[in-house]
Amino acid sequence: MLPVKISGLGYYLPEHIVTSAELERQLAISPGWIERTTGVHERRYVRNETTAGMAAAAAQRALDHAGMSVNDLDVIIGASTAMQQGIPCTAALVQRELGAPDGGSACFDINATCVSFIVALQAGAAMLAGGVYRTALIFSSEIASYSRNPKEHESAALFGDAAAAAIVTRAAPNDTGVVWRAQFNTYSSGADLAQITGFGTLHHPNAPSTTPEMNMFHMEGSAIFKKALRLFGPFLDEFLRSIGWERGEIDMVVPHQASRHGLEYLTARLGFRPEQVFINLPKRGNCIAASIPLALTEAVQAGAIQRGHRVLLLGTGTGLTLGALALTF
Amino acid sequence: MLPVKISGLGYYLPEHIVTSAELERQLAISPGWIERTTGVHERRYVRNETTAGMAAAAAQRALDHAGMSVNDLDVIIGASTAMQQGIPCTAALVQRELGAPDGGSACFDINATCVSFIVALQAGAAMLAGGVYRTALIFSSEIASYSRNPKEHESAALFGDAAAAAIVTRAAPNDTGVVWRAQFNTYSSGADLAQITGFGTLHHPNAPSTTPEMNMFHMEGSAIFKKALRLFGPFLDEFLRSIGWERGEIDMVVPHQASRHGLEYLTARLGFRPEQVFINLPKRGNCIAASIPLALTEAVQAGAIQRGHRVLLLGTGTGLTLGALALTF
Repeated sequence: MLPVKISGLGYYLPEHIVTSAELERQLAISPGWIERTTGVHERRYVRNETTAGMAAAAAQRALDHAGMSVNDLDVIIGASTAMQQGIPCTAALVQRELGAPDGGSACFDINATCVSFIVALQAGAAMLAGGVYRTALIFSSEIASYSRNPKEHESAALFGDAAAAAIVTRAAPNDTGVVWRAQFNTYSSGADLAQITGFGTLHHPNAPSTTPEMNMFHMEGSAIFKKALRLFGPFLDEFLRSIGWERGEIDMVVPHQASRHGLEYLTARLGFRPEQVFINLPKRGNCIAASIPLALTEAVQAGAIQRGHRVLLLGTGTGLTLGALALTF
Repeated sequence: MLPVKISGLGYYLPEHIVTSAELERQLAISPGWIERTTGVHERRYVRNETTAGMAAAAAQRALDHAGMSVNDLDVIIGASTAMQQGIPCTAALVQRELGAPDGGSACFDINATCVSFIVALQAGAAMLAGGVYRTALIFSSEIASYSRNPKEHESAALFGDAAAAAIVTRAAPNDTGVVWRAQFNTYSSGADLAQITGFGTLHHPNAPSTTPEMNMFHMEGSAIFKKALRLFGPFLDEFLRSIGWERGEIDMVVPHQASRHGLEYLTARLGFRPEQVFINLPKRGNCIAASIPLALTEAVQAGAIQRGHRVLLLGTGTGLTLGALALTF
């Protein structure tokens, strides 16, 4: 139990909207297939936006929401899958884009693919509670569109670009904010089910043997779904037992917007009522690490999450990692 | 003050040794220039090793040193600059390579370039002290050799490949181990002084405008050195004041092995005696994030660091981030 509070939230979406009908024409997919298969009606793709630029825009909105300024930040944690560049970490580039004081914060990135935000929230909360930092900016900013493989229709249609950010602080005695607990279990037997084999030392961009496909996302959607299906029920039961929460007591579940099947599974099989689960997949797509904080921000802005509410963030990330974090907002 | 202990340390070095004389012949550099300029006599370059394979070998040695097994790990934190592949995080791949139980640990990566290990140690220590985890594996594994720019002689000659790992646990009441405090300050005004602009969304490997040079390391060595020179003295003074340590009371300083000039500066200008500073640069080169944990491991194995010793880990990473962590071993 960590006395830590999400003080502000913000997001940034690229202006350019791409509908599933447009994408079906581009990729020569039969009309209606994308929405039926992925549940995505439209998504955003960047045109001129950068990873750090989107993150800084989201962060500024989160600071405004918190009533704070860049001078308050003493740590900036990037929590995205794709970096803006190989070196340095994206958090340092966001300090600069945001106009945060030079030397005024510690900057580093945390990467656990789709559950990066909740891993960073857990680590950040532990450091805030331990007195290491006072005010953390945690952002997830993803440009997934560049790494889509047009030959792999399901994943190519699923992803959207977005950034979202949270300002996290120690809770004051009269604040409702608490991070109760988080749990992550990585099943590396599933590490190959969703991957980009390029972008690293295994297939260096300059190696003659590196093919363009290696720099694109590859997903075995149904195999991931099957594996997650088998593991997630017991994982969630154990997690809720560990914090003493019943499903019915949770005000809002904010899941990673992995896919239509993944979200339906939460209500059909995991025992949540549909109105307990916040869904933005149809309009946003799967925004990789940005999905959870984007959905959280939209839920708060829509009034679906209010101060004092019990919130469960959860998802699966490639790895394969199951993750959950329980907080009182 | 976190009651956390480094229970085991291990490293892995690629077998293939490249001397500076050999490299001078390969790169058409005049004899003696490399050692004179960088301070590096020899370094290792991988042949068939992978990032995760080297990390797993180092991790197994760290587990052996700690008298523990893969079953004890409940979190695996990758703390390297270059990933093995774009997705998933390297920590998940290390869980698999190491044969650690599937689902038995949380896996994620932390990236703060050259100071990644000490950032991960700070985050890991906060989570261990807060009861989130019991036993952490933190590893840094770097294949820098693939990203050297042969036209940029100084950085091309400076880097070496290596992996190192630490097993970190909560300290028992009779243990000497304590993590006293860490401090990181990122000066993003220096973000462009050392960078790889490729490997990310800015210059995607598949973008037609991406050149091979963008996927190579670029460093303005003397500009970094000047900036670090100006900032590091006050940073260190303030850090030591915050923990109440005098320079003379520190048993061993384990610095990032950035360059000969950087290491000389520690003794000539920052006020440490030469015998207080552990140096492995001549035989290892600058191994990016692996430098600090590798030097720490070698210092412990050489008996230069013993239980109860006061140890200061410090360095600069691209970002530009200054970092320091004080611990009792």
